[in-house]
Amino acid sequence: MPAKPLHHFTATEIVSAIAAGKTTAVAVAESCLEYIAGREPQVAAWHFLDPQLVLAQARALDKRGTIGALQGVPVGIKDIIDTSDMPTEYGTPIHKGHRPRIDATCVALTRRAGGLIMGKTVTTEFANFFPGKTRNPFDPERTPGGSSSGSAAAVGAGMVPLAVGTQTTASTIRPAAFCGSVGYRPTWGDLRCAGVMEASGSLDTLGLIARSVEDVALYRDVLLGVTPLALPADNTAPRIGFCRTHIWDQCEPETQRLLETCASRLAQAGASVSDVKLPAEFSRIEDAHRWISSFEFARNRAWEIDHHWDMISERLRNNRIRDGLDCSYETYRDARDFLEQQRLVFDDLMADYDVLLTPAAAGEAPLGLHATGNASFCAIWTSMHVPAVTLPLFKGPNGLPVGAQLIARRNNDRLLFAAARWVQRASS
Amino acid sequence: MPAKPLHHFTATEIVSAIAAGKTTAVAVAESCLEYIAGREPQVAAWHFLDPQLVLAQARALDKRGTIGALQGVPVGIKDIIDTSDMPTEYGTPIHKGHRPRIDATCVALTRRAGGLIMGKTVTTEFANFFPGKTRNPFDPERTPGGSSSGSAAAVGAGMVPLAVGTQTTASTIRPAAFCGSVGYRPTWGDLRCAGVMEASGSLDTLGLIARSVEDVALYRDVLLGVTPLALPADNTAPRIGFCRTHIWDQCEPETQRLLETCASRLAQAGASVSDVKLPAEFSRIEDAHRWISSFEFARNRAWEIDHHWDMISERLRNNRIRDGLDCSYETYRDARDFLEQQRLVFDDLMADYDVLLTPAAAGEAPLGLHATGNASFCAIWTSMHVPAVTLPLFKGPNGLPVGAQLIARRNNDRLLFAAARWVQRASS
Repeated sequence: MPAKPLHHFTATEIVSAIAAGKTTAVAVAESCLEYIAGREPQVAAWHFLDPQLVLAQARALDKRGTIGALQGVPVGIKDIIDTSDMPTEYGTPIHKGHRPRIDATCVALTRRAGGLIMGKTVTTEFANFFPGKTRNPFDPERTPGGSSSGSAAAVGAGMVPLAVGTQTTASTIRPAAFCGSVGYRPTWGDLRCAGVMEASGSLDTLGLIARSVEDVALYRDVLLGVTPLALPADNTAPRIGFCRTHIWDQCEPETQRLLETCASRLAQAGASVSDVKLPAEFSRIEDAHRWISSFEFARNRAWEIDHHWDMISERLRNNRIRDGLDCSYETYRDARDFLEQQRLVFDDLMADYDVLLTPAAAGEAPLGLHATGNASFCAIWTSMHVPAVTLPLFKGPNGLPVGAQLIARRNNDRLLFAAARWVQRASS
Repeated sequence: MPAKPLHHFTATEIVSAIAAGKTTAVAVAESCLEYIAGREPQVAAWHFLDPQLVLAQARALDKRGTIGALQGVPVGIKDIIDTSDMPTEYGTPIHKGHRPRIDATCVALTRRAGGLIMGKTVTTEFANFFPGKTRNPFDPERTPGGSSSGSAAAVGAGMVPLAVGTQTTASTIRPAAFCGSVGYRPTWGDLRCAGVMEASGSLDTLGLIARSVEDVALYRDVLLGVTPLALPADNTAPRIGFCRTHIWDQCEPETQRLLETCASRLAQAGASVSDVKLPAEFSRIEDAHRWISSFEFARNRAWEIDHHWDMISERLRNNRIRDGLDCSYETYRDARDFLEQQRLVFDDLMADYDVLLTPAAAGEAPLGLHATGNASFCAIWTSMHVPAVTLPLFKGPNGLPVGAQLIARRNNDRLLFAAARWVQRASS
């Protein structure tokens, strides 16, 4: 057993330790609960957490007599995802006290694998702009990022080894990077979103936040509903495209330097690394993304708009919802068509690379809790429906985490994981 | 005002009559309720219908002081779609008594436009194989088709002018054809499905059932959340591809004859009509469709499988769910990729046609209530994500309705409506 407290075990380590009879789900849960009790006052990652409910789940798991793929692993669930035994309030007072009838698919599959639902993590309002109470675990004056703020902060703070978020723009990769965790946004369409509040269905995916790439790969298999398969050996150096993107000037100088140094180091370690310039049309992707996400978001909130307009934050009303209501169907449709075409362009571009190396965000988590940071470094890839991983490879000028984002072609999620492990090892 | 009872008005006629002060939402609702009371014992279209709730809505609409695009129009809602004021039970005893907190997006947008939610229509179990209690309004010994059985039967029987269903394979077009109504399945992705039970997200859409193409076009705009726009004049004869499909031999001889006669008649009326042969690969579409819909369905029902396995019908467990649980991720992913490629092939094929003319089903509604009929004539087009309309153009050998299905390219829904009106006029 690793010489560290149970609440700092990875998911993979927890499952092994329980399978070997060296610990129990109850012991893991107690360790996490104790640690959370100490850290939560500063971090405020949880919207709902009932220690008695956690321990009752843990005791039931210890009695189950089988060892699931996530046996005894505590998992945080973003509060836009339905849970049958805990409230689900979508980051808005409009839904205060709401308790869904059944678990979302991802929650049911987590439980089936022996995972323990630790609680509901803080989300921004309807997984959009307006922040919740969560603070960055590395500096309480800074944002944890959003919209999966609590999921990223809980993992980053060391409270739980795994958490589920979602991503429509940057909502998993950005907070995971700001909170020093591994973040994963899957190929669009792979992981079912039944029971998850729809922000913009053409772009939404689940997102996973973890302490290791292995844990992300394991949890992905659980959520795909397939038997987990170990990752292939990652001895082969990947073909890496270093992609500064057309918004490189939005990247902070220190982040630029960190990524450039990283690219050189990976080349020295044996990877083929070459610069990738995105096609000129890619500069239009973010606008198209904004129209699509606003059009769909505004319609998905039809009930709240008509019944509780005054309880929606002014920022959400005056930006996303107003944009969405003002957007014509033709603008929306053309934006959707444009992205579909660019996805084929991107497939072709990726013929020469296994992964792209690119910023996860402009830099460290910004100061202040009023906003969740620049989303542009994720919006491009979210729009391409491709899988993305952020790795906590760097520290910025204030000693805070800065992520390196890796991107692969659609459906190449496992190849992405293998490359991510190689990159992580080569740059450590 | 047309010389017919209010419950036989189209949606467009109801809105005009109310706007002109010639009738009221209450009068329309009362007429529908009275007619339903007479027909429902034979047809059994409704899973939930509370006359007092209907009349309360109607009275509120008459007091609203504005005339919405669907002012006073009674609409049936398939019981896999959430309603805040009525139960939603998904065609299964597992969810008996469930009452959602909020309206699905499509229900909220219907109410915003002044539509009146008449009640919840019968669905097959989880919108899948296992039939509900509904009978064909033209012959109680025959299936109404499914899975939107009650929605199609309610419109076909003359109980309401509009109903919402869904389609993952054939679930709107087939029952609309069997019940002698106009059915419409939109371009995939256009109409938000928030608050609608997901069967298979990669294929699911809403579906609309109506008495006229105009009504379908109007309701589509309402559900897109845009200001309704009149259809363009349909004086131009469309370019029609007559598509027997590779499963023409599954089509009953009389249906073959009806469609061939129709194609000739449309050519005589001035349309350019030519035979379309589908690429050989299209014969693999239905298999790909089956893997995708089964893989996703089985995961989406994770909670019900783990908590209420015994309450799921044997037919559903032994077919769709078993197929889905047995399907590997790789098979699923390859099937999804294959369909994505074929969609591009189909886009190219449609360069020379405005619409395809093709069967909506093999023939009349089959005898018996144990099954909902052959889905193959819809599975192809559902998989292509294209818009489809069925028109009640024919009568079969038993005097029962037989539909003609028209297909357009993705995003060409309005062109499809214009062509459908032309076809309807030219063949009457």
